Parts: sequence; structure tokens; C-alpha cells
Amino acid sequence: MEVELKHLLADLQSLTQSLPDPSHHALLLKIQLRVEDLANLAPVRRSKVEDMSAEVVDSNPYSRLMALQRMGIVENYERIRDFSVAIVGIGGVGSVAAEMLTRCGIGRLLLYDYDKVELANMNRLFFRPDQVGMTKTDAALQTLSDINPDVVLESYTLNITTVTGFETFMSSLKNKSFCPDKQGSGVDLVLSCVDNYEARMAVNQACNELSQTWMESGVSEDAVSGHIQLLIPGETACFACAPPLVVASGVDERTLKREGVCAASLPTTMGVVAGLLVQNTLKLLLGFGQVSPYLGYNSLKDFFPTMQMKPNPQCSNVACLKRQEEYMLAKPTRDAAAKAKMEAEAPSTEEGPLHQDNEWNISVVDDIELDGPDTRSSDVLPEGLTHELPAADEFHEATVGTPVGDTDDLEDLRKQLEAINSS
Amino acid sequence: MEVELKHLLADLQSLTQSLPDPSHHALLLKIQLRVEDLANLAPVRRSKVEDMSAEVVDSNPYSRLMALQRMGIVENYERIRDFSVAIVGIGGVGSVAAEMLTRCGIGRLLLYDYDKVELANMNRLFFRPDQVGMTKTDAALQTLSDINPDVVLESYTLNITTVTGFETFMSSLKNKSFCPDKQGSGVDLVLSCVDNYEARMAVNQACNELSQTWMESGVSEDAVSGHIQLLIPGETACFACAPPLVVASGVDERTLKREGVCAASLPTTMGVVAGLLVQNTLKLLLGFGQVSPYLGYNSLKDFFPTMQMKPNPQCSNVACLKRQEEYMLAKPTRDAAAKAKMEAEAPSTEEGPLHQDNEWNISVVDDIELDGPDTRSSDVLPEGLTHELPAADEFHEATVGTPVGDTDDLEDLRKQLEAINSS
Repeated sequence: MEVELKHLLADLQSLTQSLPDPSHHALLLKIQLRVEDLANLAPVRRSKVEDMSAEVVDSNPYSRLMALQRMGIVENYERIRDFSVAIVGIGGVGSVAAEMLTRCGIGRLLLYDYDKVELANMNRLFFRPDQVGMTKTDAALQTLSDINPDVVLESYTLNITTVTGFETFMSSLKNKSFCPDKQGSGVDLVLSCVDNYEARMAVNQACNELSQTWMESGVSEDAVSGHIQLLIPGETACFACAPPLVVASGVDERTLKREGVCAASLPTTMGVVAGLLVQNTLKLLLGFGQVSPYLGYNSLKDFFPTMQMKPNPQCSNVACLKRQEEYMLAKPTRDAAAKAKMEAEAPSTEEGPLHQDNEWNISVVDDIELDGPDTRSSDVLPEGLTHELPAADEFHEATVGTPVGDTDDLEDLRKQLEAINSS
Repeated sequence: MEVELKHLLADLQSLTQSLPDPSHHALLLKIQLRVEDLANLAPVRRSKVEDMSAEVVDSNPYSRLMALQRMGIVENYERIRDFSVAIVGIGGVGSVAAEMLTRCGIGRLLLYDYDKVELANMNRLFFRPDQVGMTKTDAALQTLSDINPDVVLESYTLNITTVTGFETFMSSLKNKSFCPDKQGSGVDLVLSCVDNYEARMAVNQACNELSQTWMESGVSEDAVSGHIQLLIPGETACFACAPPLVVASGVDERTLKREGVCAASLPTTMGVVAGLLVQNTLKLLLGFGQVSPYLGYNSLKDFFPTMQMKPNPQCSNVACLKRQEEYMLAKPTRDAAAKAKMEAEAPSTEEGPLHQDNEWNISVVDDIELDGPDTRSSDVLPEGLTHELPAADEFHEATVGTPVGDTDDLEDLRKQLEAINSS
């Protein structure tokens, strides 16, 4: 609007000069003042901040974040400016995740969506009624750049499940111009905030190919539960190894977006899932606390199940199998490093509890020791399970409730969740 | 801005009429068109919606909420329009809670705050840099009325801990003009989203006096944990009976807002706490799921402790004691109703687990049966605890870690939380 107001003032100026009769000048001056008032009404944008300061003044947008250092939570908060995070899906979860990261002062955000803002989205946070009709990427760019001009924003209005969309998605992740010295891809983390199976499989494919750590998120179609999950190619289950439980809820997701069919949604559930997702993002990037491998949210009972999932050695995704192989090959190096670290951090007393970290663990299944003796290198699954494991690309045709992967644990957890939901 | 643009167009009109020389009319027309373009740039507000429709069209802001009925979660969603919720403190938690309730289409919101928006608040959701300098109540009104003009908004720019502020607070809660037939006060729920001890005690005092159900929320000064708590005068502990654990964290809260001292905060933790708070608000108002009596959030470990707290028969708050007495007097009626309900819902099988609801309960302490045989009517606490119970108004001077109330459970939980935090 600033540009338009400037043009208007210039036009008024030339009109004043071209009017010979000063009797009109009073009215013209009044009009000019009105336009200047309008310019003052236009929102003032905050200017960029060169360095993150810890100074406690009202005018410092980073004081409460830098205080995390003084409080002993984060060692070096300013590192957040070096990180790039890609968010796929700028809906009820993705848009809030983007706003949280923007307000935290993340270095660079890459946003992907092909949808437009509708009034039907107004029951979730972030988008405003005056943005109806804009693409979600454009609307997000508008809002986020106003909130924090220090964040480098990139937006991609595309569908990653199309061939060209996927290609652009891949090349944007590989682009290292923001941080040329970074190892691996050009982004530090990919957050999947999409609402369908195909898009999740596309993110999974890209991240497996790039060996890119990512986090998956989802909200159930009845709007009252959700989950987040950390996926590290080769080290944890990929999305094709074992689709998350909330997704495996018995409804073919392909039907969700049919004409006249509409899933429920709530700003609360989506806000909580976005908050848990970005909190775990901050823990991962800035190195504090413990990153949850999987965290569910059952809002009817305020129940938060956790678990870990190993990769499936029979995964249908070729890139996943390649990452699993690399992970196994690096095992001796990892074991040696872990041993050296354990010896360096020798316990001060032998009398403490055996698993102090786990004393109040609320997992409903035991954590799986990823580096312990396991069957990952074996192509054969435990007896009696073979027939219950459909290939990932047959997932939508498979019997509901037989997710692929650590079937014992998954089956267990599913039954427990069902018992909770039906009680 | 719309009004200003109209005035401007009228002035231009009269200038055109007063100019005899048509040679200037071209430029004037250009100017007029520019102003009309500006008018198009000004945000279009969405119009009010008479009835909540479940129709699945992009233009229906309530379709995803009304879908909660079809999904079998809520029996009658539209009832939300009858409810009034008061939010005290429009900061990092309160503003997001207000936005969530606004987007959910709550009937009426009452907002209380005395603070102004600062750039230092930009690390939390909701407020925008262009609102810096406005009161938080004015800025909230501006944003919320744009998001959903159907919500009746009332704002009070005052400090509830002052004598006049408290009086206005009380009378605003008592005002029943929105729902004249409602029993009790004029609001259905009070949400406390304040950041200091005095304000919590003021909300507690008002709610005890009015027998008003409320929910308390809080975030720790290191920004990585928080809690919500349901308080029903007479039935549960009041804030003076037993201050929540996060508040009882060893720092005198009165020092928190000193010059140069600044607590850390994160949009993630505050977003999660606001989401849990409003989700429990929806469960309470619309009658679905289970409302958590207390829910903690330790974000470093994604740990969510729950518990219940009985009122303290030695509470220093006179109004609380009166509510406890009323609650005890109504016990026979309540017991009879519960018995009748149990008989009506006779179990279909005797073989199920004894406490099915509790099968996967993640409480670290057992739930306390509120109506079971207890010591509430007794003035004497269990032996050995008397000296550890300071009066509530001596709380800030009391030894840290000796909260009043169910000392066994609280002490237990506190130790467990400490063990978690230090491990």
C-alpha cells in the first residue's frame, strides 16, 4: 500500500502545481493531508535486526529467547539463524509451525503448498478472512515477513506429488546457497504437515533419497488426536516401513478430500501438534532436552503415548534399504564413539537406579535399543509375522490394523489405543 | 481506514465540481481511481453468520467444527454460541486461547489486561509488530473481531489486583445480560492466563466468592514447562489450598517483573499450554471426553503428569471454606444421583478390568476418589504434617517445596519432577 500512497501524493503535487487559481489550494491541501493520514494508518513494519541481543528492553524482539541461555536451557541460541527448515503443507499445523519458527528467529524457512485460503480454514489458527482467495504460500509470506523480517522466506506454490512438483521440491532441498559449507542437503530439517497419504510418501521418498532427517505430523479426521514422529533415514523406520498409527486408523485417506466430505478440525489439536512439532525441532537443532521419536496426543483423555520404530528390513522403498545398509556399515564407528563417550562420562555412583533416564518413562511399550543386538541385518522377520506384513505400496489395500514394522509393538499399541478410545 | 477513504473520495468529488477547467479533470480522475484502488486494497471483513451451518462449502467458516457432530465427538456443537468465557491476562497463553475460542465460534469472550504490546512480545504467537504501543486488550479486539465478527467481545483494560480493578472484574463476571436465564454468574468459565502470584490469588478470590469454575494455566520462567489445572470451588483444591507445582518452583514470582530481569519464553510451550487449556475448555463446555483436573507439560522430556487435588480443610481462604461446606452438605444428593446413574448404566459383563477407564492412566500418583470416604470434613490433617502446612497468605515466605493440600501426593510428584529435571 505504501507504493500506491506515494503515487497518489505525487499526482496531487502535480495537480497543485498545474492549478493557477489559489482558491482551490485549500481543498487540495486538505486532500493531501488526508492522504498523509492514510499513509500513517498503513502498518509500520519492524526493521531488520543485525544481531540477536540479550538486552532486556521492551524494543528487543529476541530478549525472551536469548534468556534461554541465561536460564541454562540452550547453550547458544543465536545458532538458530544458521538453520534452514522446510515445511511441506501450510495448513492447520504447517502454518502455525511456520509462525512459531518465524517468531523464534529461524534462519530460513521453505514453504510448500498448492492450496488457496478459504473461509472454511478459519477454524484453525494463522490465516485471516481478508486473505481468502490468496494462495496459502502468498498469504503465509505476507504474514510471516510482517512478523519477523529477519527470516529468509522461500515459497513454492506446487504439489509435491506431481512429477514436476517433486523435481522442484528435490532441487529446492538440495540448494545450498544459504549455507554453502553445510554437509548433506541444503536444509537442516523437513517438517511434513500434509493431510494425505500420497504427499507423505512423496516427502518420505525425497528424504530417503537425500538421507534427510525429517519429522512427520498428523491430526485424525475426528480432530481429537494427533501425532509427531522423527524419521532419520536408515536409523528409524521410514514412512513406508511403518505408517504412523493415526494414519492407520481405518479410513482410506484418499477419500478424505472428496466433494461434500469434510473432516473435522480444531485449532486446539492442531495448535498442540504444531507446538510439540516445533518444540522437538528446537530441541533437535539447538541440542537441548530429548527429542521424541514418536509422540501421540489423545485429547479426549490427555494421553500422550511414545514409542520408537526400527526400520523394516523388508521395506518396499529402495532408498530406505540403501540408507539402512549405510547405517549398518557405520555401526562399528558408532559403537566405538558411544563406548568412548560412556567411559568419559563414568557414573559417579554405582548405587543409582539402573535406568535413571527411564525412571518415569510414560511409554506404553518399552523403548527399543537401536544399537543393541537386533534383527535389522536379518532379512527374515520373527516367525508367524510374515503374512501380516503387506508391502508398503499395498498399504491402502491391506487389512486395517496390521501396520508394517515392529509388528509386536505396533499391534500392542494399537490395541491399547483402541481400548482407550472405546472405554 | 474505510471511513477515511470515503471522506477523501467526497473531497475529490467537490474539487472536481469546483474546477471550471476540464483540462484538470483527467488528472483528477486518475487520482480518484487511485483512491478507489486503495479502497480495494483495504481488508474486506467477513460478514456475520446467522446460524452455524454444517454445509461443506469453502465459504462456510464453521463446516469443520460442525463436522465434530457427524464424527460423533460432540452432540450439539452450536451450543458453543451460548457460552461466555472470561480470559484474565492476554499474554503468550491468554491471547492464543482467545484466538482459539474465537475461531471455534464461542458466544462471548471477556478479556482482561492492563499491559501494552511491545516488540519483546513478538517471540510468542498472536500480537503483530504493527500493534506495538497499543493496549493488549485493544490489539486483541482488533485482531479477534476481524477473525470472527460473530463473537461478542468485551475488553477490560485494568489490573485485577487493584481495588477498583477487582471490583470491575467482579461486576463484569456477575453481569448476566448476555444470558439472563443462566444459573450462577454471567460467565461459564474463567481462564487464568496471568504471569504472577497476586493476579492468580485475585482470580481465586473472585471465583471462590462467586462459586465460579475456573482453569489456571502457567508456564515456567525457563520457558520449557507449563501446566493447566481445573478449579471447582468446594470440590477441588483452590489456588490458596495448594498452589500448582510449576508456580511453587522456588522463585518468588513477585521478582519476575523487576527491571532488567526477564524470564525466557517460547511460542511452542505457550502454544501447547493454550491448546491444552482450550481443548479442556471445549470438553467441559460441550460435554465430551474427560476434563483433566491437572495436566503438566515437561517439554524437555515430553512428559505430561496428571493428578487431582482435594480442597484443604485448613485453607486460609474463607470463601473456599464456605464452598467446601456447601459441597459437603450436597453430598447425600450427589451420592444418590451417582448411585442411580450407576444402576442405570449396569455393566454388561463382570469380567472386564476393575478400572477400565484407568487401564492406561499415565498419572504418576493415583487419582483420588473425591466422593469416597475421606478426611475432608475433619479439621485435623494426618499426623506429622501439621507443621509443614503454612497458611496460603504466608506462601511466599514458606519453605519452597512444601505446598499445602494433599501433601503426600504433592511432595511425591514434586520429587519425581525434580528427579526428571535433574536426570
